[in-house]
Amino acid sequence: MITPEALHELFTETRSRSEEICSFLKTEDYVVQPVVDVSPPKWHLGHTTWFFEEFVLKPNVKDYQIFNDRFAYVFNSYYESAGDKVVRSDRGNLSRPTVAQVYDYRRYVTEKLLNFLNSEELSDHLKKVIELGCHHEKQHQELLLTDIKYILGNNPLHPEYHEAFDENPIQDFPQEWISMDEGIYKIGHNKRNEFCYDNELGYHKTFLQEYQISNKLVTNREYLEFMEDGGYEQVLLWHAEGWDWVNQNEIRSPFYWYKVDDAWQQYTLAGLKPLDPEAPVTHLSYYEAFAYAQWKGLRLPTEFEWEAAQQNFDWGNRWEWTESAYSPYPHYTKAPGALGEYNGKFMVNQKVLRGGSVATAPNHLRPTYRNFFHPHLRWQFTGLRLAK
Amino acid sequence: MITPEALHELFTETRSRSEEICSFLKTEDYVVQPVVDVSPPKWHLGHTTWFFEEFVLKPNVKDYQIFNDRFAYVFNSYYESAGDKVVRSDRGNLSRPTVAQVYDYRRYVTEKLLNFLNSEELSDHLKKVIELGCHHEKQHQELLLTDIKYILGNNPLHPEYHEAFDENPIQDFPQEWISMDEGIYKIGHNKRNEFCYDNELGYHKTFLQEYQISNKLVTNREYLEFMEDGGYEQVLLWHAEGWDWVNQNEIRSPFYWYKVDDAWQQYTLAGLKPLDPEAPVTHLSYYEAFAYAQWKGLRLPTEFEWEAAQQNFDWGNRWEWTESAYSPYPHYTKAPGALGEYNGKFMVNQKVLRGGSVATAPNHLRPTYRNFFHPHLRWQFTGLRLAK
Amino acid sequence: MITPEALHELFTETRSRSEEICSFLKTEDYVVQPVVDVSPPKWHLGHTTWFFEEFVLKPNVKDYQIFNDRFAYVFNSYYESAGDKVVRSDRGNLSRPTVAQVYDYRRYVTEKLLNFLNSEELSDHLKKVIELGCHHEKQHQELLLTDIKYILGNNPLHPEYHEAFDENPIQDFPQEWISMDEGIYKIGHNKRNEFCYDNELGYHKTFLQEYQISNKLVTNREYLEFMEDGGYEQVLLWHAEGWDWVNQNEIRSPFYWYKVDDAWQQYTLAGLKPLDPEAPVTHLSYYEAFAYAQWKGLRLPTEFEWEAAQQNFDWGNRWEWTESAYSPYPHYTKAPGALGEYNGKFMVNQKVLRGGSVATAPNHLRPTYRNFFHPHLRWQFTGLRLAK
Amino acid sequence: MITPEALHELFTETRSRSEEICSFLKTEDYVVQPVVDVSPPKWHLGHTTWFFEEFVLKPNVKDYQIFNDRFAYVFNSYYESAGDKVVRSDRGNLSRPTVAQVYDYRRYVTEKLLNFLNSEELSDHLKKVIELGCHHEKQHQELLLTDIKYILGNNPLHPEYHEAFDENPIQDFPQEWISMDEGIYKIGHNKRNEFCYDNELGYHKTFLQEYQISNKLVTNREYLEFMEDGGYEQVLLWHAEGWDWVNQNEIRSPFYWYKVDDAWQQYTLAGLKPLDPEAPVTHLSYYEAFAYAQWKGLRLPTEFEWEAAQQNFDWGNRWEWTESAYSPYPHYTKAPGALGEYNGKFMVNQKVLRGGSVATAPNHLRPTYRNFFHPHLRWQFTGLRLAK
Repeated sequence: MITPEALHELFTETRSRSEEICSFLKTEDYVVQPVVDVSPPKWHLGHTTWFFEEFVLKPNVKDYQIFNDRFAYVFNSYYESAGDKVVRSDRGNLSRPTVAQVYDYRRYVTEKLLNFLNSEELSDHLKKVIELGCHHEKQHQELLLTDIKYILGNNPLHPEYHEAFDENPIQDFPQEWISMDEGIYKIGHNKRNEFCYDNELGYHKTFLQEYQISNKLVTNREYLEFMEDGGYEQVLLWHAEGWDWVNQNEIRSPFYWYKVDDAWQQYTLAGLKPLDPEAPVTHLSYYEAFAYAQWKGLRLPTEFEWEAAQQNFDWGNRWEWTESAYSPYPHYTKAPGALGEYNGKFMVNQKVLRGGSVATAPNHLRPTYRNFFHPHLRWQFTGLRLAK
Repeated sequence: MITPEALHELFTETRSRSEEICSFLKTEDYVVQPVVDVSPPKWHLGHTTWFFEEFVLKPNVKDYQIFNDRFAYVFNSYYESAGDKVVRSDRGNLSRPTVAQVYDYRRYVTEKLLNFLNSEELSDHLKKVIELGCHHEKQHQELLLTDIKYILGNNPLHPEYHEAFDENPIQDFPQEWISMDEGIYKIGHNKRNEFCYDNELGYHKTFLQEYQISNKLVTNREYLEFMEDGGYEQVLLWHAEGWDWVNQNEIRSPFYWYKVDDAWQQYTLAGLKPLDPEAPVTHLSYYEAFAYAQWKGLRLPTEFEWEAAQQNFDWGNRWEWTESAYSPYPHYTKAPGALGEYNGKFMVNQKVLRGGSVATAPNHLRPTYRNFFHPHLRWQFTGLRLAK
Repeated sequence: MITPEALHELFTETRSRSEEICSFLKTEDYVVQPVVDVSPPKWHLGHTTWFFEEFVLKPNVKDYQIFNDRFAYVFNSYYESAGDKVVRSDRGNLSRPTVAQVYDYRRYVTEKLLNFLNSEELSDHLKKVIELGCHHEKQHQELLLTDIKYILGNNPLHPEYHEAFDENPIQDFPQEWISMDEGIYKIGHNKRNEFCYDNELGYHKTFLQEYQISNKLVTNREYLEFMEDGGYEQVLLWHAEGWDWVNQNEIRSPFYWYKVDDAWQQYTLAGLKPLDPEAPVTHLSYYEAFAYAQWKGLRLPTEFEWEAAQQNFDWGNRWEWTESAYSPYPHYTKAPGALGEYNGKFMVNQKVLRGGSVATAPNHLRPTYRNFFHPHLRWQFTGLRLAK
Repeated sequence: MITPEALHELFTETRSRSEEICSFLKTEDYVVQPVVDVSPPKWHLGHTTWFFEEFVLKPNVKDYQIFNDRFAYVFNSYYESAGDKVVRSDRGNLSRPTVAQVYDYRRYVTEKLLNFLNSEELSDHLKKVIELGCHHEKQHQELLLTDIKYILGNNPLHPEYHEAFDENPIQDFPQEWISMDEGIYKIGHNKRNEFCYDNELGYHKTFLQEYQISNKLVTNREYLEFMEDGGYEQVLLWHAEGWDWVNQNEIRSPFYWYKVDDAWQQYTLAGLKPLDPEAPVTHLSYYEAFAYAQWKGLRLPTEFEWEAAQQNFDWGNRWEWTESAYSPYPHYTKAPGALGEYNGKFMVNQKVLRGGSVATAPNHLRPTYRNFFHPHLRWQFTGLRLAK
């Protein structure tokens, strides 16, 4: 169980980092929602705050005065069982509360929660809820960065977020195949004292056939070869749904790639830059990752293959699409009540991604971490690693 | 033809009033677009400015330096022939240019245009284009107010725009029928020296049957009777398309009406208020206006009946739906080039509204003014006057 | 008032002609509904029969035995006030009742109605309802032909309907302008003893400016010039909604035109044929008719101009788009009850067409007849005549 | 490898059974397509025929005369790489070819293929393609029955297909839990000489935790308890996508259930019948199957658990939803060319069903058979078996 000191530190650090991420924004940048998957930054700031108010302060602090009783309606996201909420696609239609009011809300809740942390001997359950609230906010920190990228990167003026943000660390080592033996492997989280999400449990055995997995992510250079070989026009490389998606959306390159005067440029959080051929390719859908693997005569690893082999390669710069659908592990159980909505209700029609990204919050990476998205989505820092 | 002094005055007054309207907004309010018909206030401020830059400064001022060459893309609205533009539904997705940058843009263009006005002996054509630009901006002033109302009125916090804004002037006189004789009437604008839009020309004769028209707009009290009599449930009162619209959108009252604790409230620019039964009903679609008239056994006037009789009644607080479809007058001709897109291209599937509203810019009301909207739209200050 | 003999003759002739039209079909052709505007032929046969059962037999014949009490649900079309009905877009999803059952239904109702006609001294009102039922069926005869054309003409096998059906009568006379004086004209139906629809009443005066109207419909040859001059690519020729329609639907020619080996072919009810340049162009939307007129520097006539001048030119082969929106005439009144839904409820967002077509039923043409369709629709035999 | 005699027998039996299934239809029933997932029976008859023409006769029979060169366009389904095709949603819009023509086509191809079988020493590859064509047609036989059920069951007249068709075999034995040990199990098809689809390969080991699986399918009686307990209103029982699906489609019972005078009726291929409480529930989506299991505090088995345990229970009357997403087995490889589109391209966003149904063709059931559908689909004879 997390110590009070560690929890205090985790909470303080988490709350301030969200605000630091937003410190480079203009007021207007906090407000817009260019597509339904992206939320306005001020919504993220409010929603993560509401989580602490709703699940910690309101039920546990005597005479707690809610900051504004309409905010639950504005900042609840998907907890159907925690009451009514603004339709997701309307988040960008709300000019109020203003950014200043949202920061007031944050200060108010942060202070109340610090008071609560300091004054009370917290139950283990409550410590866990607060710890979950911090990890929840860290998840939203990653979304803040990817949503800000979407907001600025799809603006015709292509403003930069921060000139020093480096999205594209180079893998300066040769590609090699890591061989893994057939056998039984243990999968899932088993460190009793460390935080994990419910979907990383239960810890269980799985059988893997012999396989090989690359030590290196696929690069822009390699992906360009696929494009230049007509990868987007060869139906047999694609899933049926992927093919429909490619054609309906006229997809011909990864997201954020712009052809300017016959040369590929890539919008990054540091602005529009020439495409770096050695950087790991990113902003791909699962469909594209799969088609690329087909074209190479190879395949994506399952999430179990990835986890079993991960000690043998570097990871953490890209969320790596796996072949695995997002399903419950054996003996998976949901938390009771609204917190049980956290993960389980998404376990259909999504694909697992493993690893982490340049936008992931510090200390938020784990070998057992299961990220998940619908197969067509591309605004996260997604990438791919091959297996055979 | 307008004198140089009058043009200077018109331009100065118009430019400053747009900014005055927005002076009560928070930065966030300038940005959002809750439905496609509504534009963000900063877009209106930029678009009316772009009009002067595109049609006056760029073609006529030697060595004119465009403020920002991406702004034409951002702020063009519907002038298809004047180049590429942001898709209408994306206006609310743009956090940049910021509000401050838009005000910089306004200052720059206003100053350049004043210089141009002062320095040059302007051709009559150019004076007309500048005059049109001012009236164009006045039209957007009305849209600014109705769009701001939409933005704030659909926010769950229901913020007010300005406490002193009075939308609901009372008609404290009894209802009477004005009788009009059968005969030939002259319709359209015929004051050579005064401004009008192309759609108010040509001035022409029309024949009207004997008719009667009310001196008074329909009130909230009267409209409530229709509602309480089940007007929204009686199919025979409605056009087929109106009936579909009512049912698909679950319409049961005018727009901005909220039932709070069994009493009707109305969102106004001064905030949420108890419904005033004597105020003229507003925020109705044409379908609702028509159904109300059917229910009374009466009808809406045509735009010609309205114009022929208008000297006999007060008008100007509500845009009054007429039975007339928006069509060209005899001998109507479009201006050549992009300015010809101003009115003519909308002359299908829309209904004419006559009068004016509490949101109409000062000096922008004329008996011959032809406003027009699609029959289902309600966010303007629309109302109705009966005829028989 | 129609005589009993004339009514008997009208009824008998009308009923048998519907079946004659369908006699060239395969069973399968009766069933399908390729777009929502088109109804399956067996639906037309059933619906026109239901009209007589619902409005004549059921309320007036003692102990009348309804043929099948589910048929009202299947064959009601748009009479909202006459009960529940199959959603329009589902008409083509019903394999039952079979074609044979529909013919049984027709025989049953025809016989019952003939018995009723023979046995009773009918009230004037009832004679009018039966007469209306016959004209209603004649309207559906035109739809039968245009819907059959759609069903066969959009089939990849392009089967013919009947080799002898001639859609394209040539106008072998030179184009001339007919001059009409300014003045008051009488509009609408005023022959007391002859049938007309409610929308042709009341007979009323209108004032027309001096104008000229062509004696000849626009031909394929002329329309091809417009196409070859890039008419579909010139935004300034189009209404805003027309331009969107052209681009969203990738319209580049009239409906049923197919380019085969670099030559234009036209699907006709007699099969696929080389385009005849001298035939009047057909299967145009109002948007296209308007754009063509703009391109010529001319315009479409209003329905009043058309009616006032119609004695001076040939008409009846094409439904001619007019500039007039479909609105009620002065003193228009709807019939009470469900029959009042016949025309009035469509008087918004539609355009009036005048004339008649090669598919119109015999004796169904009148100078005062007001046909109406939404401006984007093309599956009727529409055409255009210019005015200035 | 299949013997020539067995292949001849398989082909003959398969071809005649498709026609036998359709022998109870009216001509009109062959034509309609009430929803995009359902195809018209005549399309199934043509498509299965086209498969033999396209993949066997055309490439292998010298001077083979194609029956009608437009039929490939009409009857190709999803083989993107085998050429252009009618859009799926347009299949029900085609009245031609007629049913009689489709039967002519069948006779022609059947005869040519029998000639080919008799005259030639076929290569192993070709035998496999023909065998695949037969199994392909058997799959369409199941779809024929479920599509016919949809066509008739959604018709307001509720016609029966065949009075003797029994959908609802009773499980007259008590429910028991079958216990399965933890361990390594072999999964997939491994009988060299027997037919299977590519997706049943490769045969491989998997590790299963200890589990229990029911010997009995969930019954209507049990499912009614879930409904009566408000199962459709309890958000926490549902996946997020399931909850949206329930609410958007107003789902409150399994498909084909109709409440008539307060009693549940079920449309079956033998017509509308009172709901049999002891019959296994059917026509459920995966979402409903999952929610039911949640409500019981139990779960669905994975497809591996099902296969490992299947010798211990009866199956074959319902397609049983499993928790497994449809993914490739280890070492799965697609056939080269168009036949490779058969299965692999659907391996995303679908769920595996195991077992078989009352509509499955004889000799088409196997313990290793992997059926798959999107989680919201209900028109197959789906059901569920619980595990824990």
